[in-house]
Amino acid sequence: MIIDIHGHYTTAPKELEAYRQKQIADLKEPSHARSKGTLSISDDQIRESIEKAQLKLQRERGTDVTIFSPRAAGMGHHIGDATTSLHWSQECNDLIHRVCTLFPKSFVGVCQLPQTPGVPPANCIPELERCVKEYGFIGCNLNPDPSGGYWKDPPLTDKWWYPFYEKLVELDVPAMVHVSMSCNPNFHTTGGHYINGDTTAFMQLITADLFKDFPSLKLIIPHGGGAVPYHWGRYRGIAQDLKKPLLKDHLLNNVFFDTCVYHQPGIDLLFKVIPVDNILFASEMVGAVRGIDPETGSYYDDTKRYVEALKLSPEDRNKVFEGNARRVYSRLKNKIPASR
Amino acid sequence: MIIDIHGHYTTAPKELEAYRQKQIADLKEPSHARSKGTLSISDDQIRESIEKAQLKLQRERGTDVTIFSPRAAGMGHHIGDATTSLHWSQECNDLIHRVCTLFPKSFVGVCQLPQTPGVPPANCIPELERCVKEYGFIGCNLNPDPSGGYWKDPPLTDKWWYPFYEKLVELDVPAMVHVSMSCNPNFHTTGGHYINGDTTAFMQLITADLFKDFPSLKLIIPHGGGAVPYHWGRYRGIAQDLKKPLLKDHLLNNVFFDTCVYHQPGIDLLFKVIPVDNILFASEMVGAVRGIDPETGSYYDDTKRYVEALKLSPEDRNKVFEGNARRVYSRLKNKIPASR
Repeated sequence: MIIDIHGHYTTAPKELEAYRQKQIADLKEPSHARSKGTLSISDDQIRESIEKAQLKLQRERGTDVTIFSPRAAGMGHHIGDATTSLHWSQECNDLIHRVCTLFPKSFVGVCQLPQTPGVPPANCIPELERCVKEYGFIGCNLNPDPSGGYWKDPPLTDKWWYPFYEKLVELDVPAMVHVSMSCNPNFHTTGGHYINGDTTAFMQLITADLFKDFPSLKLIIPHGGGAVPYHWGRYRGIAQDLKKPLLKDHLLNNVFFDTCVYHQPGIDLLFKVIPVDNILFASEMVGAVRGIDPETGSYYDDTKRYVEALKLSPEDRNKVFEGNARRVYSRLKNKIPASR
Repeated sequence: MIIDIHGHYTTAPKELEAYRQKQIADLKEPSHARSKGTLSISDDQIRESIEKAQLKLQRERGTDVTIFSPRAAGMGHHIGDATTSLHWSQECNDLIHRVCTLFPKSFVGVCQLPQTPGVPPANCIPELERCVKEYGFIGCNLNPDPSGGYWKDPPLTDKWWYPFYEKLVELDVPAMVHVSMSCNPNFHTTGGHYINGDTTAFMQLITADLFKDFPSLKLIIPHGGGAVPYHWGRYRGIAQDLKKPLLKDHLLNNVFFDTCVYHQPGIDLLFKVIPVDNILFASEMVGAVRGIDPETGSYYDDTKRYVEALKLSPEDRNKVFEGNARRVYSRLKNKIPASR
């Protein structure tokens, strides 16, 4: 079985975006902005949006299950306030739940959180619990920068985030550390802000001792860990200068990387420096890069090809494609029985 | 000859830091803050600070010349105002000039710029000209984020920067795109902000057509290009989605990467994906990482070892260690005659 742990619902019916645009327009009228409004999308619309895009590509590429969440760039936590973010997150998560209910063998849900700059992350606990307990979601996307490129909230290692981590541990669900759209003109969303978010998060974790306080907390750094594997020597060296333990002991019992790296040399490096137990297969499809690489004739984001080109033992291959995902997303077994 | 294009004067006599601290303290008293103050450091102090640190390591590692600039983290463009930044830059650049005068065969100067958030970069032209014309400096460090981690000024592709680029082209000196210290608690300076700055700058360049306007402008992205080579497929794919030319045509006539990547797999990747003509040898020594890698027994930042472990032809080796530096820093020939 091949599990892709990083897919966003980027092909949702256009009514979702219309809902969001109305919500944003309503922010100019405070009385309207308190109303959740309505979103009407039929099951047939959902089926079509999935079967002609995500599911079609899964079948073509030979992957079985996608751990599926709302569009990351669309989370837009910097827009409006906590009520805006709650309404929007609920609608997005409800839609993911409907996808997972319509295609229970192919999709398992991960939720968007109703984060807001300056509002304690504990505020997101009710929506997390709703999605995990009522919908059977198995994780969440945690935005380390709800301000959208201005980085105004405290680092991930600050006590600011602790009540939320306590809930993650209690529910035994991991968080993928994933920023949303950039509203800072300096940062291209998928090419700048996403990769910087990954790099920043990992470096924050180096400087602190978060996993002494939360030994069973699990965080996934997407996009192959940002710049981290390429600069693994720098990060090992900085940790050493800071008198921290070796990174494998300091972080790698709790931190995992996905394989959203869109060329063979990048994947080769990832597997050379990061232990195979810490790598989870993912493609971020349909997402950041949609074209075909003229150098290979295949889609840039068809990361399965790169992983299959590695010389992995059958055991390691199974870890990357299935076993590690089941270990990190421990609730996955309730949704998709193991293939063996 | 081996030219290291990226060295900062991180071991300057302590009087320099005392000067800076007084300057910062004086900001509380506006009348004092307008005074440049005095900095008294003897030639013997400079000799000692260089011979026992930078030059000692150069000799031990077998490098000949360092293109040398003030401490990057120390630039601190977010502190005070344009006058603060001008006084501080002048003092730092004067000190680099003295190093280069005392050790003319081993050091060639690159200047710090008196940037200030919200102040047009054109304001830096007089100090650039002073350093190039009076001191014979061969380049500058250009901070893409003078705010120190809040990214408040326009992207490098904005017309905001154009008058400064015109002067760079006129003088035929390149700029290394290098941030300074982070004052944002989210970003560790050398592990987060530096790498993000590199990644961000390159992605800004992808989205625009800066080199159509400045076909002879030369920019160096340090620290091995941040995350860029590791995610080369992503960047090629994003450029393709944006209908930009192939990156080699779009950017690689004007953009260069250094070799400040502190482990062999990272250097291997850099040379696999980036053309050898675009790679300049550098170590960033004495700098971001000061320890010895227990996996190799050598200093993390002894990047010459990693480059020498590559299977480069003698011609390519010479490009990386000397030829490319001479091409990018065209004024270097006035200071250091070619070895052949």
